[in-house]
Amino acid sequence: MNPSRALKYARAHRARFVAELKDFLRFPTVSSQPEHANDLKRCARWLAHHLQHIGLERVRVIPTRGHPIVCAALQRMPARPTVLIYGHYDVLPGEPIREWRTPPFIPTLKDDNLHARGASDDKGQLFSHIKAIQSYLSTGRALPVNVKCIFEGEEEIGSPHLTPFIARNRRALRADVAVISDTRMLASDRPAISYAQRGGLRAELEVKGPPHELHSGNFGGAVHNPLQALCEMIARLHDVHGHVAIPGFYDHVRRWSEAERAFMARTGPADEQILQDAKVERGWGESGFSLYERTTIRPALTVNGIVGGHHGPGVKGIIPAHAIAKLSFRLVPDQDPQKIAQLFRDHIARITPPAVRSSVRTFSAVEPALVDRNHPAVRAAAFAYKKGFGSLPVFVRSGGSIPVVNTFQEILGIPAVLMGFGLPDDHIHGPNEKFHLPNFYKAIATSIWYLAVAAKLRGAQPRQKRAEWRNP
Amino acid sequence: MNPSRALKYARAHRARFVAELKDFLRFPTVSSQPEHANDLKRCARWLAHHLQHIGLERVRVIPTRGHPIVCAALQRMPARPTVLIYGHYDVLPGEPIREWRTPPFIPTLKDDNLHARGASDDKGQLFSHIKAIQSYLSTGRALPVNVKCIFEGEEEIGSPHLTPFIARNRRALRADVAVISDTRMLASDRPAISYAQRGGLRAELEVKGPPHELHSGNFGGAVHNPLQALCEMIARLHDVHGHVAIPGFYDHVRRWSEAERAFMARTGPADEQILQDAKVERGWGESGFSLYERTTIRPALTVNGIVGGHHGPGVKGIIPAHAIAKLSFRLVPDQDPQKIAQLFRDHIARITPPAVRSSVRTFSAVEPALVDRNHPAVRAAAFAYKKGFGSLPVFVRSGGSIPVVNTFQEILGIPAVLMGFGLPDDHIHGPNEKFHLPNFYKAIATSIWYLAVAAKLRGAQPRQKRAEWRNP
Repeated sequence: MNPSRALKYARAHRARFVAELKDFLRFPTVSSQPEHANDLKRCARWLAHHLQHIGLERVRVIPTRGHPIVCAALQRMPARPTVLIYGHYDVLPGEPIREWRTPPFIPTLKDDNLHARGASDDKGQLFSHIKAIQSYLSTGRALPVNVKCIFEGEEEIGSPHLTPFIARNRRALRADVAVISDTRMLASDRPAISYAQRGGLRAELEVKGPPHELHSGNFGGAVHNPLQALCEMIARLHDVHGHVAIPGFYDHVRRWSEAERAFMARTGPADEQILQDAKVERGWGESGFSLYERTTIRPALTVNGIVGGHHGPGVKGIIPAHAIAKLSFRLVPDQDPQKIAQLFRDHIARITPPAVRSSVRTFSAVEPALVDRNHPAVRAAAFAYKKGFGSLPVFVRSGGSIPVVNTFQEILGIPAVLMGFGLPDDHIHGPNEKFHLPNFYKAIATSIWYLAVAAKLRGAQPRQKRAEWRNP
Repeated sequence: MNPSRALKYARAHRARFVAELKDFLRFPTVSSQPEHANDLKRCARWLAHHLQHIGLERVRVIPTRGHPIVCAALQRMPARPTVLIYGHYDVLPGEPIREWRTPPFIPTLKDDNLHARGASDDKGQLFSHIKAIQSYLSTGRALPVNVKCIFEGEEEIGSPHLTPFIARNRRALRADVAVISDTRMLASDRPAISYAQRGGLRAELEVKGPPHELHSGNFGGAVHNPLQALCEMIARLHDVHGHVAIPGFYDHVRRWSEAERAFMARTGPADEQILQDAKVERGWGESGFSLYERTTIRPALTVNGIVGGHHGPGVKGIIPAHAIAKLSFRLVPDQDPQKIAQLFRDHIARITPPAVRSSVRTFSAVEPALVDRNHPAVRAAAFAYKKGFGSLPVFVRSGGSIPVVNTFQEILGIPAVLMGFGLPDDHIHGPNEKFHLPNFYKAIATSIWYLAVAAKLRGAQPRQKRAEWRNP
């Protein structure tokens, strides 16, 4: 099957596709901030309308106790396989706003880059598949495969409602392969398929001292400072060698074979590349592992933010009443997020100084995930990349966490093909996030090719009955 | 001299005095926040107008490169001493606003307490003296002494423009004694005269990592986190015994005689009292010293606030680009703030981890101060307290820092009598600051008595020529 008409359509309509992506990016869909709940609703409706408009069927905006899930399907090829496309339309906060050169929710084109929060993570990437489907349907051709789409609004907060939804909709979501584009390539000419994801766990550590702020002149030296105590406790989460110092933390970390590590060394980015991507001069962390290994097969604990005491302009001579640290763990096989949560709580209880009180909240547990890089559905993706980007992809591990990968594998029993279209300098999660438009165009072409070659995947399940989407 | 008519006037006009104090408190005179500069100007003009209105002369609002200084005088008694009254009309920020039960700049009366930022520190206290002067002048009596007033708008930011102003206005400010009411009593029936103030030094420590926020999944474990580094550095500012761990920090801390420490033990608050005032269950800090000693004759280093990473609601899986800690030192004789600043810089340079960069800014240096508690001007204040509050005051050391005390002693060569009218539970610098109105009334009476007995102070300087106020 030669998808030349779809490819031609996609080429001819680039400007319109970019304009539509800009509309998608204008919704400030910050899932972690309750004041944006309505923006997520509006965006979900916009997305559903768009899916309907391009010709998908069974389009639904499904409410959850959090943000809605958008589903759609097109099943016209009973003998062909079904590709399940996942993406997320929620984004991280735009803060710190003042570090953006253009406002995060006013998509701005600069040279070949489209700047906006979510441009790369994940609206731009998921939109590539939508535009690929549209390119088939708008040229009067049938899609070469059946497709199902599931787009959630809670990925950045750990997908709390997605797994129950998928569990309840096993039948409706039945497919042969899941495609997720929420990762990155090594460079614009080096596509990559991610075959491993770190797991994750969020934690908030709160330290409380006096019931209200105290004058540091009157009490400084005699009353313990919860912010100082918090710093001292955080200092005890790592040893001087960059190892996490929580007893038992490494007990179940898998030791990989020399063959696997050699494969990683061949295919993964060199230390210099990672330093260059981060724009830092020197690395940090566990000796004995490359920087690539430290961010993929080794776990990490990061302090994401601290709130404590006076943080406005000017000075204020106070002992704060309390202080909070926001932390995130990145976990690897065979660490269990729940066990890590318990080890963390135990450690914090042990190291809390007697003159203050501490409490720990853990949430958003995500299991680490692995995908068989020799699965035919993964090999098909490699071929599609070769057609779309002109090069075969490398197989890499990702340091991030996409909660749904495990869910697809465990609940639906299908592999998740992680076809990343982002670039290392896309600044995802930071200020001035952008999506490189040539990548957008090539991503659409790659998706068009993938849908074409996926038609030939063996082991396709027999025609399924239509099953309705159910609320989680 | 019996000031009965002035006392009677003050009693009769309490309600009006409180209404006027509320007007004074409505100005959000936050000296550390540039957006309030105009509020300080407006407040200074209001204050000057008020001083003129009650009958003071030579009233001037004197601009500085920061916030204005308000001066006034009344010199009608050539043979009598001159009392210089100091106070500050600037306040700390109201943040965290949500912890206030009533808005910080809407003065609210609850039972016998007037709640507002600055109610006790220092608008309410300085206003007591203004109302005392008014009580004399409004009853047709001459003031028993000459008075000069100097009210600044930069005390909470270390009085950067006051010392140059005083130096340039040595002649215009010539006086026999300075009175400062910006400290607190031990309890509402236990007045106190402060004879020692800790010095101070502010510092900002910034740690920088990558040029912008990084995704903690992609880089966590391989790139150092400036917020973690900041915590680890702060953890190295104290040892496990609560001592400041900066080498050389204690080298010039004066060792007091057993007699002085015995005096302190007799006159100062017990540990239990300090814990009760702070509403905490247990103390903290250097063993071998009472809590009172730890907050007065021992230096302290307090982390006032940290800004780093994501501090809004929700979660954000990032490695921050930089982090800042705001710190304040409280210093004691014979520590030199400039030398301490250097020791701090040296220590920070030594403990900065190689994978991040740090910078230090120090400012608002204040020398520690001591006042001879046997000086006749101080003894006169004790008598006035006995009349105003019904009890003789105790002599206590303060843990805070009033920059001007040293300036008066060193540039004008006069003692500063620290007559505090605040209460330990006034919540100065914290949310829900208040001034206890019975204290306000007794403070006015005490000031009326002080002006009466100060007339008899020996060693009064001969009549001075009028000298004009000069800009600093």
